[in-house]
Order: sequence, then structure tokens, then C-alpha cells
Amino acid sequence: MDRVAWFFGGGEADGDGSMKVLLGGKGAGLAEMTRAGLPVPPGFTLTTQACFEFFKNGQRCPDTIEAGTLAGLARLETAIGRKLGDAKRPLLLAVRSGGAISMPGMMDTVLNLGLNDITAAALESESGNPWFARDCYRRFLQMFGDVVLDVPGVRFSESLEALKRAAGVATDPELTADQLAGLIDTFKAIIAEATGASFPQDPLRQLQLARDAVFRSWFNERAKSYRTINQIDGDLGTAVTVQAMVFGNLGWTSGSGVGFTRNPATGEPSLYGDYLLNAQGEDVVAGIRTPKPLWKLATEMPDVHMQLTDIASRLEAHYRDVQDFEFTIQDNALYMLQTRAGKRTGPAAIRIACDLLEEGAVDAAGAVMLVQPEHIEQLLHQVFVAGQVRIVLATGEPASPGAATGRLAFSSEEAVARAAQGEPVILVRVETSPEDIAGMHVSAGILTARGGVASHAAVVARQMGTCCIAGCLTAEIDVREGTLSFGGVSLSSGDWISLDGTSGEVIRNRLALRDPDLDDPYFARFMALVDDFRTLGVRTNADQPEDVRRARELGAEGVGLCRTEHMFFDPERLPVVQHMIMSATDEERGAALAELLPFQRADFEAIFEAMDGLPCTIRLLDPPLHEFLPSRQDLLAEVASLERGMRHGDNLLRFLELNAATAETLAGVREAMSRASGSLDERLALLRRAETLHEQNPMLGHRGCRLGISFPGITRMQTRAIVEAALNVRARGVSPVPEIMIPLVGSVEELQHQRAEVEREAELVFLERGDRIDLQIGTMIELPRACVLADEIAGEADFFSFGTNDLTQTTFGFSRDDAGAFITDYKRLGVMKEDPFAHLDQRGVGRLIGYAVNKGRATKPNLKIGICGEHGGDPKSIAFCMSLGLDYVSCSPFRVPVARVAAAQASIARARTQQSDGALERPPTSAPERQ
Amino acid sequence: MDRVAWFFGGGEADGDGSMKVLLGGKGAGLAEMTRAGLPVPPGFTLTTQACFEFFKNGQRCPDTIEAGTLAGLARLETAIGRKLGDAKRPLLLAVRSGGAISMPGMMDTVLNLGLNDITAAALESESGNPWFARDCYRRFLQMFGDVVLDVPGVRFSESLEALKRAAGVATDPELTADQLAGLIDTFKAIIAEATGASFPQDPLRQLQLARDAVFRSWFNERAKSYRTINQIDGDLGTAVTVQAMVFGNLGWTSGSGVGFTRNPATGEPSLYGDYLLNAQGEDVVAGIRTPKPLWKLATEMPDVHMQLTDIASRLEAHYRDVQDFEFTIQDNALYMLQTRAGKRTGPAAIRIACDLLEEGAVDAAGAVMLVQPEHIEQLLHQVFVAGQVRIVLATGEPASPGAATGRLAFSSEEAVARAAQGEPVILVRVETSPEDIAGMHVSAGILTARGGVASHAAVVARQMGTCCIAGCLTAEIDVREGTLSFGGVSLSSGDWISLDGTSGEVIRNRLALRDPDLDDPYFARFMALVDDFRTLGVRTNADQPEDVRRARELGAEGVGLCRTEHMFFDPERLPVVQHMIMSATDEERGAALAELLPFQRADFEAIFEAMDGLPCTIRLLDPPLHEFLPSRQDLLAEVASLERGMRHGDNLLRFLELNAATAETLAGVREAMSRASGSLDERLALLRRAETLHEQNPMLGHRGCRLGISFPGITRMQTRAIVEAALNVRARGVSPVPEIMIPLVGSVEELQHQRAEVEREAELVFLERGDRIDLQIGTMIELPRACVLADEIAGEADFFSFGTNDLTQTTFGFSRDDAGAFITDYKRLGVMKEDPFAHLDQRGVGRLIGYAVNKGRATKPNLKIGICGEHGGDPKSIAFCMSLGLDYVSCSPFRVPVARVAAAQASIARARTQQSDGALERPPTSAPERQ
Repeated sequence: MDRVAWFFGGGEADGDGSMKVLLGGKGAGLAEMTRAGLPVPPGFTLTTQACFEFFKNGQRCPDTIEAGTLAGLARLETAIGRKLGDAKRPLLLAVRSGGAISMPGMMDTVLNLGLNDITAAALESESGNPWFARDCYRRFLQMFGDVVLDVPGVRFSESLEALKRAAGVATDPELTADQLAGLIDTFKAIIAEATGASFPQDPLRQLQLARDAVFRSWFNERAKSYRTINQIDGDLGTAVTVQAMVFGNLGWTSGSGVGFTRNPATGEPSLYGDYLLNAQGEDVVAGIRTPKPLWKLATEMPDVHMQLTDIASRLEAHYRDVQDFEFTIQDNALYMLQTRAGKRTGPAAIRIACDLLEEGAVDAAGAVMLVQPEHIEQLLHQVFVAGQVRIVLATGEPASPGAATGRLAFSSEEAVARAAQGEPVILVRVETSPEDIAGMHVSAGILTARGGVASHAAVVARQMGTCCIAGCLTAEIDVREGTLSFGGVSLSSGDWISLDGTSGEVIRNRLALRDPDLDDPYFARFMALVDDFRTLGVRTNADQPEDVRRARELGAEGVGLCRTEHMFFDPERLPVVQHMIMSATDEERGAALAELLPFQRADFEAIFEAMDGLPCTIRLLDPPLHEFLPSRQDLLAEVASLERGMRHGDNLLRFLELNAATAETLAGVREAMSRASGSLDERLALLRRAETLHEQNPMLGHRGCRLGISFPGITRMQTRAIVEAALNVRARGVSPVPEIMIPLVGSVEELQHQRAEVEREAELVFLERGDRIDLQIGTMIELPRACVLADEIAGEADFFSFGTNDLTQTTFGFSRDDAGAFITDYKRLGVMKEDPFAHLDQRGVGRLIGYAVNKGRATKPNLKIGICGEHGGDPKSIAFCMSLGLDYVSCSPFRVPVARVAAAQASIARARTQQSDGALERPPTSAPERQ
Repeated sequence: MDRVAWFFGGGEADGDGSMKVLLGGKGAGLAEMTRAGLPVPPGFTLTTQACFEFFKNGQRCPDTIEAGTLAGLARLETAIGRKLGDAKRPLLLAVRSGGAISMPGMMDTVLNLGLNDITAAALESESGNPWFARDCYRRFLQMFGDVVLDVPGVRFSESLEALKRAAGVATDPELTADQLAGLIDTFKAIIAEATGASFPQDPLRQLQLARDAVFRSWFNERAKSYRTINQIDGDLGTAVTVQAMVFGNLGWTSGSGVGFTRNPATGEPSLYGDYLLNAQGEDVVAGIRTPKPLWKLATEMPDVHMQLTDIASRLEAHYRDVQDFEFTIQDNALYMLQTRAGKRTGPAAIRIACDLLEEGAVDAAGAVMLVQPEHIEQLLHQVFVAGQVRIVLATGEPASPGAATGRLAFSSEEAVARAAQGEPVILVRVETSPEDIAGMHVSAGILTARGGVASHAAVVARQMGTCCIAGCLTAEIDVREGTLSFGGVSLSSGDWISLDGTSGEVIRNRLALRDPDLDDPYFARFMALVDDFRTLGVRTNADQPEDVRRARELGAEGVGLCRTEHMFFDPERLPVVQHMIMSATDEERGAALAELLPFQRADFEAIFEAMDGLPCTIRLLDPPLHEFLPSRQDLLAEVASLERGMRHGDNLLRFLELNAATAETLAGVREAMSRASGSLDERLALLRRAETLHEQNPMLGHRGCRLGISFPGITRMQTRAIVEAALNVRARGVSPVPEIMIPLVGSVEELQHQRAEVEREAELVFLERGDRIDLQIGTMIELPRACVLADEIAGEADFFSFGTNDLTQTTFGFSRDDAGAFITDYKRLGVMKEDPFAHLDQRGVGRLIGYAVNKGRATKPNLKIGICGEHGGDPKSIAFCMSLGLDYVSCSPFRVPVARVAAAQASIARARTQQSDGALERPPTSAPERQ
């Protein structure tokens, strides 16, 4: 690949569509279109490798690239029969940027290059159209001045606007050729004044300077921040495509336009786009003249329209996908300037995939690959009605997708109260805790200032399918005052606000919503296709029977994680759980556990019924203690208030005595004080216990199997509830498949201990019932030590399930609740490319998982292994899990269809890679490009 | 090793002293003494493997062991010319327990076995001493009844006491033979009544039953809890030694005794011990008769004393160590019954090692191996004067060694106030935080209810050399009331208490203390020996110049970890640090940093001076935020009080107005209220900022390099302080060797970022000063992710230093502050053998460290690697670090000599292993045994 300049033209091209990394998306697309026989102006592409050399050489092109540029130019001149700078038939060039991954508008382009006073005159005489030639010249001066010579672009545009105002016209075509000649002089003067030198008249020098400027634009500020936001690797570099100009501004039989081969919003199979006559491409998107819809071209230029329709269907047939293209009409002749896969909405993506399959343009696997997992998500949640203005106040972590509009509430109680009056509610909290569950449940959306995509708010919201934005760091929340501020803007309780959980945008205004359409026939057809290819199992993380039922409807093949502590958050149960945790003696604890048993058993029965015949992995209790403890702050306040009351009471008594109150009165007061004293003692005892149980780092505290080991009664009660529930539902004709999972195991000894407890209690129930049932006992692998010692642990485990949230926390030493603050800095500085709670960290955490899978299977070759962390719903992570040999992923109910698609695509991608290693495949989860 | 019974006798033995694991300490010792030609009664040992088989076979001996027992017995009968149960010359046996590791008094023994009505009569006629024969018989019935037949031992001893009372005598020898005959009948009746069967007369049956009972005693409650406390593996099992009886109760020319070859308290080279004439061994320790000191034997039985002296020196020469032995004199003939290495105090151990070297009994390496690292510790701290009664209230984690006596204080302020009045203080806290530093500094000892050996209290106390007991879970502390309770006992502020930081005992009474004697000439001689063998470097963890100086005096070869955040706890600096952390803007933060710079520079200058010529690793700021934040609880209280005050003020104003107060008065009140309002606003702002910065899990929060990345000004200020300090001291003729360590790195990108900041700032200082200095930049490896990606990270690091505290926390998912609660349960249940914060977890954390060392050196073969976690001072962990190829360990100043000894011993042990793989070496760090 030592070639510097890759030529295309006359039906032939050095490169092809597969070479995006080397030629950029644009260069590869032009080569491919040329090969396909489409009308493409000839040109050549300097590679991204050249860009790398350019920077390595101190932002100057080394000789090889200079030579390559000249060679490419020579070949282009021969092909087109024109010469750069020729005084009769000058060649004009478009010099365009284009990276491997689309970064629309972020890098630079120079058009009409090659013009100087001599070639401009030649163009004028050759075209016989002075207005056209001068329009081209002034465009070139403007772009070259701005992009290459660093003259502020606004100086040119202001001059142009001033001229139009002076001439009393609204659009460029209304200016006269003479007026344009004056403008050219003005532009030259601006350049001379700003740069201290006159504009370079040598066309070859122009080309070299423009090429270098485009290379350089890879590292301009906007491109850098775009890459940071979109997680694009800064090492890729941009290619430079140098192409013969075609002219949409050559009068009213010329024009420029952009289009899609199908409607990108709905998927409807008809040409869709805009065009302008007598204009260059930039004018179509600039918004100065209003472009016309493409169907009008059928009336204005029927032949061209027919040719475009034909090309569109050839493009689709060639690329087997909807295309987004740019074209120019020069004097009734159609030229294609760019094509790429078209961005589309979720519903459109699904319809297009189904239609292309039906039309025979793609096979079933191809159809599956046409829909991105994120597209599926759009179908499962409410969305904003398109076309509404958004006043964006801030952007946080898009923690749970969907859209919501509602009135602000600052506490769970307020949310519940507003919801009771029928108001849609947006709950705003600094961060949520289990005490907020009731409020979260009734809210349409949740906004938190702290925590990221793995925070409590995010996890619970996803499970509920509620829109959530977490870790919105610029939000200042004053709960006491009930205000939410962003810089200058301050909102109060009851104000309207909208949240976009997919983009993370917090929106000031009230937006209209549209319901998801799960009955869409295309959706059903598509999801049926998907499962033919999928080899990886998909389960769900759910602990409420209704969630389990919903997940099953969405295709879940079992419960991968039932978090039993979530079943304790019910307001009826929470005090019992708190009592259990605060118990100072085994007896107290035993009593509380006995109270919880029937609740748990009933829950498990409902879950087994909902997953009839499919496995249900139930994780034994793993509550970070602080989520259940009464607030020490509240207790302190109560104590202080009681103590104050007692003092007042003493004073009151003295006052009454001095003033000869009756004995009855005094006795009444004393009785009340004695009751208060009792309350005070009780509160103080609670406070002391809460102080004892308080943990500095609850995430690393007395939780998981550590609790079950210290208090085996908990393990036994839960085991009993599970086993009794399974036997009960089986008696009703249901087939329960219980799997008991021991959490937070770091050593085989812990698992041995808990396994023995579970087996003992299960045998006891079997004995009591005179009946038995198969019971698998496995463990969460969620600590680095468990990964390192997976060989030992596998000896005691029937299955592994990776808890990647905790594993990410401990491997990185990041608290998911606190990391938001610095992960934001890390992403901004490029120290971290993506949030490891959103996408599994394959290099680090992934290496530990891979090690554990290998070690575990070395002990037990058939060990069943899944993942139940939140990453189980992330398409990128799903592909990675498949590559590690996992048996299933488990995710929140609403992500089940997303995971099914991602898993199917990972299978297809793997099969294709195995078939032909060098095949030209779009990676399954990459975004379609746009430049 | 299929042999079941290992014989010894007549100068020959199947086994030898190296076979402790198979034969138990006792069996191996007897075999070795027999081989050495010492007078040992013959016998045989049933192996620990037999014990394992016994339990595997459902607590019954399989046929192989029965056969082995008979074979051993037959060989013993032949050797001694007597037969078990013989009616003329009966063989009597001692059946003794003995595991590989000494568990004194925990398991069972049966003596005088083989007696029944017939053999007792034979013994009587053979010895011509009815009293002796009957004394033996009653002893046997008593022991057999208790140990084998499970008759409560107290029933026998009470009968014996009752008999002596009735006979009006004080000691057994005063009873008549007839009285003993009656006692025998009483004992038989007790057995018959308690077991419902008469005592087994068949001597072989007696032997089988006694053997099984001894095997079984491995799992009795006292043995199990002893093993848990002393971290002895429960799988080892006990051997059973069956030995021909010799009789110390055969009249006044017989006797029994115990002794040491040198004084175990002082090391003085003379025989030391006790004996009793006409007594069996058990009587010497039973305390009924008062034994005589061994030197009296020289008068009473000069020949025997001379023989014993001779044997003692042969034992020392043979074992090359002080021995603790048991002997019996039967009719003027001396028999040795046991020998083992003698337990000794620290000062004695050092003197003995030096003396044995001088005497030529050991070479230098041998002398080094004779002292345990823990012995060294005893020399460095105050200890209790020996022989004082201790009323032990509770036992906590022995977190920092030494002894302390003082008056209770419940807050830092109280401790400071008491210390100011010259009182010795014991500071009691639920857990400590940096705000307690002042109080900790003036206290003689520190006691906490929470946290373990790696808690804040423990780490700081070790560094100060202050005695500390942490995680004393049974201590109930009521700070409000100023009380400390243990079950029923309640202590108040000002009460006296004593702490033993070496054993973890909390002691009710005031104990006298003795100062350490560092000028002991033996100590200096011994430490000089040590460094000849040591290959591993030893540095210190210190951040105060005085600590650095002390560590260097104790032999530190550099600073391995200077925690710069500890330098911020100074009361003068803390507000500035808090201000820096609470800064809302870069400007505020910059101002606070500028204030800190001169402090830091001065500290570093003092440290460089103290370590002139030796490397100093300075870790950049790594404060868990919560250690520096003002308490939210305090702020809330202040806010509440100010708000209350404002309300009172409003009422007061109305009152004053109604009652026509003067304008001046009203203005004065209003002015005060306005000031209060200002304070309130300020407090509210602080509170909001504290709320924002508050972290759920500060250990996993915004700390380490994360802080330096978010706020690069901190990194720059510290770099500047280090570099300026180094240049300043060099100008004064000192040779500084600065090493900058970036903390809490989890990715190479983090290290790159911080390295660039450090290098940039250093170059700036070099430029300003026109002078430069070598600067190494390395990183802490303290996160699992850093271990996993050590190959990448090594590319940017000049050195690695393992921070094993944090690495243990994250690998296990244990918070060092919170894990105390469940680690105690884990140890009790055998789920965990030792606290991973005290001894490096070699299986898990160690595997990660080994992986990181290999990966790091794969990238940089000469990468300098150390460990600076608290494990750097733990002898077991030091040996492990050496095995991993680390270059140095770093520990708190007072542990430096301990580490030097441990490192030397690890080198010697390794050299010996390399020389001869099967050599008979005591592992360097194992405790000397006692049974």
C-alpha cells in the first residue's frame, strides 16, 4: 500500500469501497461508484497514511507525497483533457477531507481551486458566462482565504451580504457579473490586508496549500472535540480527495442536491431530498436560498430526475442498503459526488431491512445487519414528536432511553403527591437511593446530578423502562428550596421540563410525546428473522413479576439475575428488612426473617410462573447496608428535637408548680414526658446501632455472601422461600427451573460455606415436603479475586455469572456513584475513551473475565457462564462476551430485543469473518457514516 | 511413606527430627534424640496420615492402622523385653498426642496404660513398692476415665481431694498405699456409674481406645479454637506416640522435671527449670506441690544433675538452638521424654543467637535464623514489666505493637488536654480520622472499636510507633456519655486502662511499663550480622522528617513511600487544604496551592536532608476526599443553630420595638443579625459544596491521580515543591535522590497525563533555576486493572511500587475500615485463615502481583519494583515479595529492623533450599514449637 495517490475516473479506480480506512469514506465511495459505472467526475485520493506522514514530518508533506500529488494530478489532467492553470481550458479542482469514520462538517474543503486572474478569464470565455466564472472565482477566494490562509470567514460573508444589501437583492444569482467582479477585488484586498501578502496565483501552489490545510484540519478544535464526544480514535487521520470540479452554478440548467434513496424517517420506498438550481452544493445546506423537494425535479428536469431515480436504485442494489448521496447537474448532465449509507430512524431502519429482504436486495443475514441495536430501542420507548424546538439546558449521561415531559418534583413524596393528581412528574435528585423507589416508580423521567450509567438511578430506571438522565454535573439542585439551576436558569418545583434519555439532553420546554408502536408489523417480522442467527442466549435482569412477564414477551429466555434485595424495597416490607438488619440478636433477626419468608415465597412463585419452563437465576440477598439503614442524620435530628422537648417540659413543669397547677395536670405532663423519654431511649439505641453498622465504603462492606456467612439465617430463609415456591408452583402444573446464585464471592471457602447452607436447608424442605426438585447453585463472579481464583471456585459452582458492574468498580477502583465527576474530566482530556460502566472495558476488565472463563472451564469444561451486569444489554459488550465463549447475556427487560439483535449480528459477523477473512463488511455495531 | 508405626529405641529410629509433619513435633523429637544416643524410653509413633485415615473412615481405625499398631507394639515389646498385660513383667505405656505445630495442652494424653487388676499386682510385686503401683493405677484410671471414657475429670480429682482432706494430708505421697487401694475402688465405681459399664481390663483394648481418643482430640473444641486463633491448618492432624513408661513416682530417688538449656527470659547461658521428686511429669505443672529450681538438683542428685547438664549441651549442639526439654528420673536413671526449640523473649533470642555464634554452635546464618522478626519488635517498644496480673476485658486486632497504660480520653481534644496536664492518655475512638491526629500524637495508646490492621488508626499509629489496638468489636463506646463498656464492665473518661498492642489485649488494670533498650550491645551485634545476608532492600514509609531520621537510624535505605497528604494534616495547613479542595474555581484553588507550596518545599528539604544520598519516593497527593472535608453533620448543626438564632432575633426585635427600646439598641441588634445572616449564607454555601463533594465510597472516589488529572495545578505545585527542594538542599551540599510516584493509576493514559504534567513543571523549574537534577517518575500499582495492564503501564514508568493496602481492598472488594466486622466471623468459621490486610494474600492478590511483575519486566527488564503497602513490614509477606523478585520493601520506621531480619532470613532460607532441596530446615518464620 505504498501508493500515495489513488486514482478514479472513466469507469476505473485504483481503490474500492472497502478501503475506508486508507482512503476515507468519501474516497472509497467515489472509487466504488466509479467502478459501478456511475457518472463521477474523475479525481484522486491522498491516503490517511499520507496524513500521518504529514504530521510526523512536522506538518509538511515529505517528498513522496509531493511526488504522489503531482503524479495524481498528471493522471487526472490526462483523463479529463484539461490542465491545471491552463490559460484556455483550465482544470478546476475540489479538494475535500474525508476520514474513515464520518465527521460531518468538522474538517475542511476547498472548491473551485485552480482559479487565478488568467484561468478565471479563460473560464469566462470558455463558458461564455461571465457571471458563472466570477461566481466561481469569488467562491474560491472566499473558501481558500478562510480555510487555507486563516482569514476570518466572516469578513468575506459580511462583504457579500453588504453588497447584496447595497444592490437591493436577496440571492446571489440576482447579483450582476460586474458586481461580482467588484466583489472579487474586495476579497483580494481582504486577503492582502489580513495576510500581508497577495493571494497566491500559482494553481499548483494553491493545490499544495489546500491539501496541507485539509490534512491539518484533522486536529482543529472542532474535530478534536467531535472525536472525543463520539469516541473516534484520533490516530486515524483524514484522506484528501482531489476531484475535477463540476458546476451547479452554470445557469438554470445546472444545480446541486442531496438525497436519500428511501425516506430516512419512515422507511417509505421513494426518493427523498432537496435541490437548488444554479447553485453549488454548499448553497443547498447553507439556508440562504430555500431548496426544493426532489420530487419537483421530475417537473423541472424530467430526464435528470429519471436518471437520478435509476442511479438511486443501482446504488441500493450495489450497496445493499439505503444510500445518502450528493449530486451536481452541470448543464443537464448528472454527476454523483458522494454516496454513503443513510442515517435513519429506528422504525425506518426496521422497515427498510424488511423491504430490502422482500425485494431480494439482501438476504436474511444482510437484513439483520441493516438495523442497529440502538434502532430497536427507539421502538420501545416514548419519543418526542419530530420537529419541535428544543431549548437544551444541559447534557448528562443518557442513563435510560426514551423521552419524558413533566413537572419537577424534588422528593419521592412530592413525586407521589403530584402523580396522584394526575400530573406527569420528572423526579430530580442529587442521587437516588432505595427510599426514592416509590417516587421513581410514578415518575415519567428521572434526573440526577451525580452518578453515571451504572448508578442506582440508572439501573432502577432501566429496569422500570423509565427515561433517565444521570450525572448531570452542571445541574445545581437545592432540595431545601426546591430549585434546579443551570448557570443562570433556575427552575422551581412544578415547572415543566423535558428529558431525552437517549441523547442525555435536559430540555427547558414542554415537548409533545409519541407512544412507541410495538405492534408495528415490521418489528415483529424483523425480530423473527433475528433469532435464526443468534447463538448467544438472552435472559433478563428482573425481580418484579410484571417485569419478568414483559421481558418474556420481549423474548427473554430466562431470568439471569433476580436481585432479591429489590423485592425488599416494598414499603410494607422495608421496616421488616430494616428490623432484620438492625437486629442485635439472632432471635430478633430470626423473627424478622420469619416475617419476610411468606413475602419472598409469593414473589418467587409469581416469577417461576412468569418464566414457566425457563431458568430463573435468583441471587441471594446483596444489599449494600446503607441502602437499608435509617438515616443517621434523621435519627440525630429526632434525638435533638426530643431532647429539646424534654428541656421545655422541665421548664413547663417548674412553671406549673410555681403557679399551683392541679395534681392531675402535673401528672398528665409527667406522663407525656415519660413517654418522650422512652422514645428518646429507643431513638438513641437505634442511633447507636446505626452508628455501629455505618460503613465508610458500603460498596466494599458487609454485603453479599459476607452477610449470609455472618447471618446464615438469611441464606436459609431465602433458600426455603425459593424451594417452597418451586414445589408450590410445580404442584400447580408450572415447570420451575430455579438456580440459586451466591453473590460477591472472593474465595472458594465462601462459596463452600454458603453452598452447604443452601443444600442443608433445601434438603430440609425436601424432607418436610416429601418431594424434591433440581437445584443449581452457582456464583456471581464480580471481584478481581474471584477471577484470579476462578479455577478453585469453579469446583464448587454449577454456573458462573459475571457481575460486571461490581467487577468494573473493583478492577478500576471506581465507585459507580462517585465516578461521574472524574470520568467526565477523563473523557474531555482523552484519558478515557468511554465510560467503563456503559461499555465493558475489554482491555482490563475483559482480560480478567477471559482469564476467569478459561480457568473456570479448565476445572469444569461444561461450566455454564453468563453475564448479568448492565453490560449485558450493551451491543459492543455483547459481541465481546460472545468472543469470550459466554453462554448467555442478561439485561433489563426493555433491552432484551436490543440484545437479541446485537447477539444475532455478532453471530453473523463471526460467520462472515470465518468465511472470508478479507471480506468487505461493515462492522455490525458501527454507526453508518455521514460527512 | 506407607509405614503406619515408626519405631524408636535403643539408639535407632525409623524417623528423624525433620519429619514433624508426619510424626508430629513430639514423635520427630523423640526419634532424633534416640538417634543422638540420648536416653529415651523406646516407643513408636502412629502418623498424622493415620489420623487423616481415622477421620476419613468415620472415626474408626481401618485395618491397616490396627495392624500397624500391633506391629509397633510387638517391636516395642521385643526391644524392652516386656509384654503389654504380662502378669509378671507388664509393659506400661504412655499414649501421647503431637501435631506438626505445637498446641500446648490442647489435645489429650493417657499415661500408665496397660494397668488392670492383674498387671497392677504384678507391678506391685515387681517393684516391691505397693504405693507406687497403686499410685500408677489410680492415675491411669483417672486419665483414662476422663480422656477416653468421657467421665468428667472433676469427679476423680474431687474424690482424691476428699480423700486427702479426710486423711489430713496435703500431698499425694503422704497418702498410704491402703488409702490408694480404696481410691482405686472409688475410681472404678465412678467409671462404672458414669459409663454404665466396668472399666476395660484388656490392655490391648485400652491401647486401641486411648489411641482413638487421642486422634479424636484433634477436633475437640479447645484444639479447634486454638488453631483458629493461631492460624494453624486444621488438615494437619495429630500423630500418636506410644512409648514405654518410665516412672518418676518410684520413690525419692525418682522424679520428673522440665527445663531450658538457657534462660528463656534473659538468654543467660545456664540451665533453667523445675523438678519434683517422687512425681510423674504432670505433677510438675499441676501446681499442687511446689517444684524446686533445677540448680537444687545439683545438691539432691549430683550425678543426675551432671548428666542433665551434659545432655543439655549435647542437645544444644545437636539442634543448634536452645532446647526446652522434659525428663524423668527413675531410680537415679535419667530419661529424656521430649525436646523442642525453647520459646524465648526478644532480648533472650538476640543474646542467645550472639552467644551461640560466639561459642561456635552455629554459623552466622544459623545465628540470624535463631531470631524471629517478632523478637526484634519487642526490643523497639515499651513492654509491661513481667509477672503482673492482667485483667483482660477484650481482645482486638493487634494493630501497632508495644504496651501502654494511661487514662481514657474519648476525643482528640480531651486527649490533648489530659496530655497537657502530664497525664498518660489512652485515646478511645469508634474509628479515627485525620482530625484525630493531634490526639493520637499525644496519646500513649489508641483503641478503636472498628477497622482492622490496615485502618487509619493502625497505619498512623504504626508510623508514630504508638501502641494501638484496632477493631475491638466488643467495645461499646458512647462518646456522648464518655463511657467505654465491655459487657458488664463500664469505664469512664479518666479511668486507667492498659493496652497490649502485641497481643491485642485490652486490660482493666494499670500495669507498670519498661522502656526498650536499643543500646543493648547484643542488638547492635545481631543487626550487623543480618545485613550480610540480606539481598532485598528495606526502605521506610514516612512523611515527617523526624520519622525519616529515626527510620534511617534503624537501617532504612531510603523512603519508599512519603504520603504527601499526611503532611497536610498539620493544624496550620488543614484549613488551607480544605479550602483548596472546596474551591469552586481554578483561581481559588490556585491561591490555596500557592499557600501550600512553601510548606511542602520545606518538608521535602528536611526529608531529603534526612535521607542524604538515599532515594526518596514521594507520592503525589492521594487523599480520600472525606478525610479532608468539613463534616456535613457539623455544618448542618451550625446552620440549624444560626437559623434558630435568627428566629429568636426576630422575636427579640419585635419585643424591643413594642417596649420602646432606643434606636441604638435596635441598630445594634440588627447589626448582629446581619452578621449572623452573612455567616448563615457562608455556611450554606459550604454545606452545598460539601454535599457536592460528598462521596458514597470515598475509597473508590475522586482521589489519587484522578485528582491530579482533574486539577493539574495540584500535581504542578507538588512537583515544583519537590524539584525546588531538591535543588535547594543540593546547594547546601546534600545529595537528594527524588522519585515522584503517581498514585492510583489504572491505565497508561492516566500515567501519561500525569507524567507529562510533572515533566513540564520540572523543566520549568530547571529553566528558572538554570540547574537540573535527575528525576525518576514511577507509579503505585494498587488497582487490579494496573496489574492486568502492567505491560502497558511499565512503558511510562521508571519504577513500580505495589500499594498492597488498596490492592487488597479492591481485589477482595473489602473496605479496610469496614471489613473488621466480617473478617472476625470469617476467621471464627474457618472461611478465612488470616486477615489479608495483616498478611499478604498470596493466592489471590499475590497472583496479581506476580502477573504484574512479569508483565512489567517483559516491557522493561530492569524495572525497579518495590512494595510500600503495610505488608512491606510483615515477615511472611517479605519472604513472598522476595520470591516474586521485588527489589525492596518499605515499611513504617519501627518495623525497619524487623524487615531487615525477615529479608535476611528469606535470603538464607532460599540459599539453603537451593543447596539441598530435602534439607532439614526450620522454615525461617515459623514459631518455635511447644506442646
